[in-house]
Order: sequence, then structure tokens, then C-alpha cells
Amino acid sequence: MSIDVGIYGATGYTGLELIRLLAGHPHASIRFATSEASAGQSLRQSWPLAPDLTLVPSADAPLDEVQAVFLCLPHTRSAPLAAQALGRGVRVVDLSADLRLDDPAVYAQWYKVDHPHPELLPRPYGLPELGRDNLIGAECIANPGCYATSVLLATVPLARHDLLIPGAPLIVDAKSGVSGAGRTPKQNILFAEVHGNFSPYNIGRGHRHLAEIEQVLAAEGSQAGPLIFSPHLLPTDRGILSTVYAQVTDAGAARAAFTTAYAGEPLVRVLPDGELATLRHVVNTPAAALSLTPAGDNLLIVVSVIDNLLKGAASQAVQNFNLMWNLPETTGLAAC
Amino acid sequence: MSIDVGIYGATGYTGLELIRLLAGHPHASIRFATSEASAGQSLRQSWPLAPDLTLVPSADAPLDEVQAVFLCLPHTRSAPLAAQALGRGVRVVDLSADLRLDDPAVYAQWYKVDHPHPELLPRPYGLPELGRDNLIGAECIANPGCYATSVLLATVPLARHDLLIPGAPLIVDAKSGVSGAGRTPKQNILFAEVHGNFSPYNIGRGHRHLAEIEQVLAAEGSQAGPLIFSPHLLPTDRGILSTVYAQVTDAGAARAAFTTAYAGEPLVRVLPDGELATLRHVVNTPAAALSLTPAGDNLLIVVSVIDNLLKGAASQAVQNFNLMWNLPETTGLAAC
Amino acid sequence: MSIDVGIYGATGYTGLELIRLLAGHPHASIRFATSEASAGQSLRQSWPLAPDLTLVPSADAPLDEVQAVFLCLPHTRSAPLAAQALGRGVRVVDLSADLRLDDPAVYAQWYKVDHPHPELLPRPYGLPELGRDNLIGAECIANPGCYATSVLLATVPLARHDLLIPGAPLIVDAKSGVSGAGRTPKQNILFAEVHGNFSPYNIGRGHRHLAEIEQVLAAEGSQAGPLIFSPHLLPTDRGILSTVYAQVTDAGAARAAFTTAYAGEPLVRVLPDGELATLRHVVNTPAAALSLTPAGDNLLIVVSVIDNLLKGAASQAVQNFNLMWNLPETTGLAAC
Amino acid sequence: MSIDVGIYGATGYTGLELIRLLAGHPHASIRFATSEASAGQSLRQSWPLAPDLTLVPSADAPLDEVQAVFLCLPHTRSAPLAAQALGRGVRVVDLSADLRLDDPAVYAQWYKVDHPHPELLPRPYGLPELGRDNLIGAECIANPGCYATSVLLATVPLARHDLLIPGAPLIVDAKSGVSGAGRTPKQNILFAEVHGNFSPYNIGRGHRHLAEIEQVLAAEGSQAGPLIFSPHLLPTDRGILSTVYAQVTDAGAARAAFTTAYAGEPLVRVLPDGELATLRHVVNTPAAALSLTPAGDNLLIVVSVIDNLLKGAASQAVQNFNLMWNLPETTGLAAC
Repeated sequence: MSIDVGIYGATGYTGLELIRLLAGHPHASIRFATSEASAGQSLRQSWPLAPDLTLVPSADAPLDEVQAVFLCLPHTRSAPLAAQALGRGVRVVDLSADLRLDDPAVYAQWYKVDHPHPELLPRPYGLPELGRDNLIGAECIANPGCYATSVLLATVPLARHDLLIPGAPLIVDAKSGVSGAGRTPKQNILFAEVHGNFSPYNIGRGHRHLAEIEQVLAAEGSQAGPLIFSPHLLPTDRGILSTVYAQVTDAGAARAAFTTAYAGEPLVRVLPDGELATLRHVVNTPAAALSLTPAGDNLLIVVSVIDNLLKGAASQAVQNFNLMWNLPETTGLAAC
Repeated sequence: MSIDVGIYGATGYTGLELIRLLAGHPHASIRFATSEASAGQSLRQSWPLAPDLTLVPSADAPLDEVQAVFLCLPHTRSAPLAAQALGRGVRVVDLSADLRLDDPAVYAQWYKVDHPHPELLPRPYGLPELGRDNLIGAECIANPGCYATSVLLATVPLARHDLLIPGAPLIVDAKSGVSGAGRTPKQNILFAEVHGNFSPYNIGRGHRHLAEIEQVLAAEGSQAGPLIFSPHLLPTDRGILSTVYAQVTDAGAARAAFTTAYAGEPLVRVLPDGELATLRHVVNTPAAALSLTPAGDNLLIVVSVIDNLLKGAASQAVQNFNLMWNLPETTGLAAC
Repeated sequence: MSIDVGIYGATGYTGLELIRLLAGHPHASIRFATSEASAGQSLRQSWPLAPDLTLVPSADAPLDEVQAVFLCLPHTRSAPLAAQALGRGVRVVDLSADLRLDDPAVYAQWYKVDHPHPELLPRPYGLPELGRDNLIGAECIANPGCYATSVLLATVPLARHDLLIPGAPLIVDAKSGVSGAGRTPKQNILFAEVHGNFSPYNIGRGHRHLAEIEQVLAAEGSQAGPLIFSPHLLPTDRGILSTVYAQVTDAGAARAAFTTAYAGEPLVRVLPDGELATLRHVVNTPAAALSLTPAGDNLLIVVSVIDNLLKGAASQAVQNFNLMWNLPETTGLAAC
Repeated sequence: MSIDVGIYGATGYTGLELIRLLAGHPHASIRFATSEASAGQSLRQSWPLAPDLTLVPSADAPLDEVQAVFLCLPHTRSAPLAAQALGRGVRVVDLSADLRLDDPAVYAQWYKVDHPHPELLPRPYGLPELGRDNLIGAECIANPGCYATSVLLATVPLARHDLLIPGAPLIVDAKSGVSGAGRTPKQNILFAEVHGNFSPYNIGRGHRHLAEIEQVLAAEGSQAGPLIFSPHLLPTDRGILSTVYAQVTDAGAARAAFTTAYAGEPLVRVLPDGELATLRHVVNTPAAALSLTPAGDNLLIVVSVIDNLLKGAASQAVQNFNLMWNLPETTGLAAC
């Protein structure tokens, strides 16, 4: 079986990864890839083993020739293309934020703009290790945010086992590589600004991924207090490490909650006692890793790591694509 | 006035900074600098504008020719030299951990070794912005740890104003450049291991600086619960950023506590609302910077930054040296 | 077809890449991987999608269970294992320098030690794009050095077309990421030494790869004068960029020499006029890229880039393995 | 003596360094600093120990209150301010390219624009170690380009001693940190593009600094052939390392040429045989360092290193300022 696919927004960092992964995927054939600014350029400039295609403006993308599209576009620009594709029977993996929040009012609150296609909502949230029933055979999947992926893998098992102390703040100190800030030139992400630097941003209750994290935690029955989420910009290109400080009823019971949750999952590793998760565990891989460190009976430190462009975006999108077409979930990820 | 000084341990990262600072200090003259491994090498290989001296083994250091020494040595190796120098009337700024803890039993507990010279304890703790009365004219000063400096600047004002909620955990998520790990070759600090990586270590209740932080906070009357301290290794050479999550009785009152504490201090800046502290604020400078971000009424996020080799070690040692000799405290730090 | 393989020296940087590549190779099955220092550790600590094996000391490697071995060992330690494997009919891809030089006397001159198994020499030199006839079906292949790969790809086409001015020095200014220096702790490759640094080493006529480069160029009929080779250490983990200054009889004819040489080669790209080769073209890929810039009629600047751990080591070893077994040459490299 | 000074263009990387150096200079007082984009912001945001001033737009700079100005502006924008300052009797150190070339026609050829104030030309070229007679007491000095400084220090001694083989190409392979590319956002200097990358640009005969290098070499009597100059962008923030391949009549005589040239110079070190120059020798210092490596009788490899923002810009400007006012040349640079 070979599924013809298209990629919208192929020259951002996530799009570049998707070209690489899909070029090596045994059951996908890239038929088009779009870029407004780089139209006409060969895909092989992005990835030497890519198919011999040139980038096209999104208006020229031959949507009729594909069975699925990946949307690597900014929020508000993604939903209209999702609507168009679904209208023609083309399946959609949306890597933007447009389909992640079930409630358009919450979207409007966090993104300061009305949702462009509220009729598309809700859609299944594509974090397979937290539940893949709704993803198998789905027509359209909302690919999770990178920070959200890292935080949810670290906290949902606690919520499911009622280990979070009701009302206590859930503190997440997160750090991300610079590719998470996108590829549009801004002074604060210039090399000479970031090299040798490390900087917090939007700390406390300011980051948009709070909305999708809290939506999932609430659905999982979490009684924890407010999520305090403090992202920082790391002087590296890729990777997210979230250090989670969870006040728990029984730190000793936490390990079982995690090993149960991820038993048999090839892409989520719960590290043994004494080994702490680091970016090196996962950068340039499709996997997540988690370490658990109790500090007393009622505080658990979970360190959760992913590659923001892979498990936090492109390789998770391939997992979702595989589930959508009933392919083995890690197809095409073996040597990513 | 010119004070003749010697530097023990001059080829570690801290020693190298001290050579640079003291070479430019208008009232200090370097008379010797020691290194076992690099004895015979010119100081100008470390710093082109250093005096024309060669490094000597510590056994050959002409202690009689100096009025003060700076000890940049590992713990247990520092205290014997401090005892020797003080015995000859030579003043001491000790940059090791040997003189920081008042109680030898606490030292033994954290450093897993008996204190080599318990009769030297206690000594004034040289964090001038938290109290310089005991430092002016002192014969011997314990220079604080780098992490401890960054955490104490961020928390003592809260303790002094009784703003910390009694019993609530005080969570500090800290990040340090690699020079903090020293200059002795180990695989985990090789370039190809750290580049692109970010890694926690000794998180929770494992790091030795906990002892000196808790000693000072207790002396300041803190009723807070256990300190949870999670250091991480940043892929950069220098700088410490500590993100402090303090549960407080009144987040709105915190700013006044800090601006009062540091009014008139040239080397500690409390940043205005909305500006977050970053490593760039302080790297290669002798200053600290702090930002305050309330997250609700009862949680305050303090971000505290220093250069670990300067305010966390060498330039703070120069502040202490200046105080010891009644010189203006920032002498020699103008363009450091 | 599935070929059972073993990897000797699996925890160096090259060995880690080979584990990753071979774990995803459709016609190879890793049966063992060796490490003296990390024996007992799971391969999955190196690569999450590796087979579920533990590292063994090389003495315990079940050589009888494999059909081929990859040797990622230091020179002098590799040849004895090659001899042992070949003696049992096991094929060998040797990534060390032991089998690259045809003449044991030249080996002794450059490596300052007698060759441990001169009877093994000569062996085919595995740089497929410069000639694969001797590699197809070979029992044993000498995998080229990383610098040598990058320099030879940039110069052999000139030698073949007699474009190098006889007697004129061939100047190569080369730059490599730090992984090329290996994983054994030394002060000069510590993070805090390399970060912000850039340093030449062994410049002029001092680097060992000179020998294999000159051996190949001579065999290709080069009349150029001495090779001047100046390697530098880049503050990054991987990648080699060689800037070659070649005095040529006709700079205008050079492009045709290169496009002819590499026509149809999927893993060597000759970039169009005006585009200069950079590490980004090739890092984390199995490909090489070359750019050609004439500077007047008689000087040609060739910039040649590879990933030192892939085309300079592990992925080239997989190319050679594929040729050895008559598999399509890029098998297993699609998404590396 | 205290000289009142102003800085135009104080928020670029060079301007930031000048603020730091002049804030610590014992005979200079910063009276104003200009920035169009950041007007109103405190200088202390750039440097914590700066005087308590706010940045002003250049139109509001109180030129009548100062005795000297430093121009850290782009070419074509600098010359008009130089003309204005000189017209009012204010001395000028111009860090732009506007006053470096003696001949406006050469300027027009390389900068593709007519010189805005040809009547200002020529002006003394401020590279003190190559000749300071014209700089002492000068009203206006052209501060050299960063690459030019590094290349001229490495080649002028050879020209002066007639060691360069007439007509032979002089090959310079240069590498610079990213701050050399300025602070204006562009995609190619984003962190995530440069990290892990290394890239040549304008190689051969394309870079503008060729003009000033060749002007000085010609004036020094060089008979060498064309200068081949290949700059590359290093993944670090600051520092330039130029590897010069000079064909010489007598490589053995080169060392004497250099030691003679720089005898007694505190800011130019000629390293001993066997020690190669690296960025670490000079980054964050006002010094240059040179190493000499013969490769045969007729080829000399000179490695020349500076901090592009200091010896390549700001600290050299302070040297020139000191000479202009008959101050000791290294005043204010002791601990820079």
C-alpha cells in the first residue's frame, strides 16, 4: 500500500522533518509540498534523499492527487485548509493549534482571535500513548503541541491514579530548544543573542499550551490546583525537557502508575531509578523518556524529555498518520 | 595603597578569572599564583595582560611576601592552607566550601569527610548584599557557593519580611553553565556530550549547596518547608539562572521586600515588572539580576541570574577582598 | 535476506551511529555489540529502537553467530580482530586506520608502530563514489578516514582530468566537529574549553590522514605538489567542511570534471553555481556536498562537506556493507 | 584629565562593547549614546555599571558637550556624522568603513555607492601596532575592519621583509563568530540555523575587506599575487581566526620578521614554536595572537586571532582614542 500525501508549510522546521520522515516511509509517497517564500526550489535542497519535486505555493497544491495532508502552518491559516481537504475526502493531520481545543471560546481566549472554523471542532487529540482508540481510522487528527506532549506524558498517569493532591499547584519548569520559536527572523532568536544565553518567557500562567494541557488533565479527572508553567529558551536547536514538581498523595506509588501507563509502548521509556532523563536520550529520535525522583513522601519530580520537532511534532504526526491508515504505529520511524 | 596577593589554584576556571580581575585591580599586586600541573607556565598564557610571572607549585609559594591570599582549591585542600596563612597573619578569601558551614558536623554530613580544621569555624559568609558588617576588616571570609549566591539573593528578602508560607516547600529549579563542573576531564562534560544536551543532576535533596542555603535561610528566620533544589547542566560555559517557586502569603508585597533589600546596591538589580532576568543580563559581569513574577496571590516566581565564575566566585571574592581592606566595594570591577 | 552482524566498539560515537543505522536496516540483524567499559548495559540506552541486547566485552562476542562485523576500534586494536574474523569466514568492514594504507612501512611511519597484521594488506578502500568495482562482493573493506573522504571527493576528479598544476601545493583548510576527537576524556575537548573556541591542530604536514589521501591521489595520477592539510576543531559536535585551494590549469573546466565524476550518485551532490556547501547540507545525512568557486583562471576553491560520523564513518560503512552483499548501495540509509 | 565622549550606534554589538569599555575608562566620560530603535532605554540595560543615562536618537545627541565621538554606524551613515563632528572641532574615531579607503573610486567599486564625503579622505588608518605616528594627536582616525586587522597583523611583517614570493597568490582562510554579521534579524543568522552549522560566504575575491587589506599591503611594498580571501561563519558569537597560507622566499626567516615587528607590543603576542593560536587566546581580551608554522621552505602558515568586537573594533578604537589624546595606549583596557 502506498498513500499519496501532501505537506503544507514544508520549509519551517517541522515541515523539514516531515519531508525527511515521509521520504523514508515505506507506505507514503510525497506528491507535493508547499512553501510561499521558497516556491520553485527543489525538495532535495531540504533533504538530499527527498523525491525530485519542487516546492509549490499552497494555492497550486494538487489536493486531488493525495489521500492525506499534513498541515504545518500557523494557527488560523491551518483550519481553512483542513476544512477544504476534509471537504474533498482528504484526511488531515493538523500540526497547528487550530484543532486542539474542543471549545472555540477557549481558543478565542488564548489565541485572541475567533476560531476560523468552529464547525470542525472537536477532533481527536493525537497523543497515542495516552489513548489511541479515537485515532485508529480517524479522518482528521489534531497533533498536540510540543510542550503539551512533554507535560501530559509526565502528568496524566498521576491524574489517572488520583495521585495529585487536590488543589495543590502543579509546577512545571520547562526548557525548549530554539527551533520551537520558528524560523521567522526576530532579534531575540539570533545566534549571537541566544549563544551563551538562557532565558525564561511567558512564565506562570502566560503560555498558550496551558489551555490544551488543562483540557486533557481535566478530562482525565485531575483535581490538581492551577498549572504553573514556566518555559525557558535553551541555547540549543532542538529538544524539550520539562521538570515537573507534583505534590502527590503517595510518591512511592508513582512509579507503578507510570510503568502501568506505558507498558509495551515502544516510544515512551520510563527510566530506571537513579537515571535522570536528559535531552540526549531523545534528540533526533521519535521517543520520549521520563524519570521519577521522589523528594519526600509528597513531592515527586518527573523529568520528561522529547525532541520538540519529532515526538513534539513530526514523528508524532507520522504515528497519527499510521494509526489513521491502520499501519503499525512506528512505521517509518525505525531510524528517524 | 597596594596589597600584595597570592592565588592558590590559579588554573581552574575561577582562578583564571581572579588573575584577570586582580591584574586590573588598582590596589592589588599579584605576587604569586600556584598550579601543580602547570607550574612553570607564564601567567600571560592565561591572561595576556597579567603580570610577568610563572606559575609555581603551592609548596613553593612565597607566603611571606603577601598580605592576602585567594584560595581556589577543592574542599579539604583549602582549609589547611587557610590555617597556614592565618597563622602567619596573611588574610584569606576562601573560595572553597571549607569555611562556609558553621558546624563541622553538618560539613561531615554533606561532604562525607571530617572537617580538616574545625577550629577555623565559623567565619563570616561573604555575600555582601545580604550583610557586610562582619566582612569589613575581616581577616578571613568564606566566599559563598555559586548556586547558593543565586538562591539566597532570591529568597532572603522573602524570609526577612516573613512572606514565605510556613511549611510550604520552596522549589528552586536551577540551571548552570558547564564551567561550574570544573576543569578536570570527565566524559559527561565533554563537548560532544554537552552540545545539544541539557541534563538534570542531584535533583531534589541531593546537592551540597543545600546545606549553606538552609543555614543562611534559617538564620534569617525562614519558616518555609524543605528546600527542593534541582540543578541542571546548561549547554553553555558560564552563568546560573535559578527559577524559584515560592509559596508566599502575599505576592503583591514581594516587590517592596526586594527593592528595600537591594536599594543602593550597584551589583544587584531588581528588574522592572514585565522584564524577566536572563543570563545575558549578567554573564561576564560582576552583577546579579532578579525578576519577580506573581502567579496568583500566593505564588511568586523569582528568576535570579549571576555569572557563576564572577558574582558566584571571583568577583564576589574581590568584593570581599575590598571590604576586608576597607576599599570601595566595587574597586577593580568596573569593566570586568 | 537477513545478515547477522556484530559491532565491535559500540559505545564510541561511530559505534552509536552504526547501532542506529543497523537497527533500521531491512537486511541486517544486530547479534552482538561490544564495549569493555559499558558491558552489561542495554543497547537501548544508546538508541531507544535498538534490539533488546546488552553490550558484551569483545572477548565474549559470539563471532560464530554472525556473517559480518563492523570494527569501530582504535588502530592496532582493530587488525587482530579483522584477522580473527576473516579466519572464520566472517566478513569485515574495518572503520579503523589499520587496513587503509597498502604499505606497512607507510603505516609504521605515520602511526609510529609496526603494523600488527601486515599480511592482511592491501584491502579495497571503501569510498564507493570513487570506484566500487573492488567493493562489490568483497570480503573485507577498509572504511576511509573522515577527513580523507571529504578531501578525496573534492580532489580526485581534478586529478583524473589532469587539471592540477604539477608541483603546485594543494592546500586544504579543514574544519571538524568535536566528535572526530573521540569520546575519551581529555581537557582540550571539555565543553567549557571548546565552547566559544576554534583551534587549529597538526597543521601543515602533521595529520595522519595525509598518508591515505596521498596514496589515493597518487594512484589517480595526481602530479600536484605537496598536500598542505590544516585541520581545525569546530565548536560543534559533528560535520567536516574542507576548503580546498587547488591550483589548476583551467578553472573553467573543473565543473565538468565534477559533474561527470558524480553523475547519478545519490549521495554526492555538486551544488549549482553560486551556492556554497555548508555543514547544514549534510549533517545527520549520509550525503556529501561539493561547491566549486573559481578565483581567477588558475585557482579553484572546492568546499566539501560531510557528516564525519556518517559519510565519514558509519553510513559509508553501511554503503560498503551493502556492496559487499550485493544489496542496493543506499539500503538502510533512506531516513538516516 | 577627563574627556567627554559620545557614542553613535550604541546598541549594535560593537557599541555595546564600547559602552562597557568607556564606562570603565579612567579618562573618558560618556555623555551620550545614541540609538534610533531603543531611544529612551537606560544604558544600564546594556551594561549594569554604565553611567545613568538614557539612549537618545542621534538627532538629539548633544554634540557640543563632547570632545570626541565614536561612530558605530553602517557605512554611508557614518561619514556625514564624521563631517559634522569635525566641523565643530569634535574628534572622531570612525568604526565604519567610510574612512578606511583613501580613494573614493575604490570605495565606489566595493561598496556600490558613491562616497558620501570624499573631501574627508584620506585619514590615518588606526592599526597602531603597524604604525602609530599618524595616530598620535590625530583629529580623526579610521578604525580598521575586523578581518583586515587579523589579516594585516599576519602579513605586513612578511611584506616589510620582502619575504612574500612575487606574484604568488596569498591565501587566507578566515573564520568569524556571528556577531560580525550584525544584530539585524536575518534568517541565515538565526540560532537554529547557525547552531551545528559552519558556512563559507563571499569566498575568493568577493569580500569588501579585500580593498583595505590590499591598500595597506601595497603601501607596505608587497609584491605578492592576488589575495584570495575566504571567510566562513563560525557557530560562536565572537572571535576571528585567519589561517594564512603565504608562499615565502624563506620560511625560516619569518619568525624574526614577526618578533621584530611586534617587540614590546603589549597587545600582539607571537606565540612560541609549537603553540598554535586559538580563539581562546584572545576572546574577551583586547589582544591579538599569532602563530607561525613553516610547511617546507617556501610555505608559511600564519594563524592570526583576535576578538572581532575588541581588537577588531571597540578596544582598537579605545587604543586609537588614547593615542589621539596622548594617553598611554592601553588605558582602560587592563581588565577588558
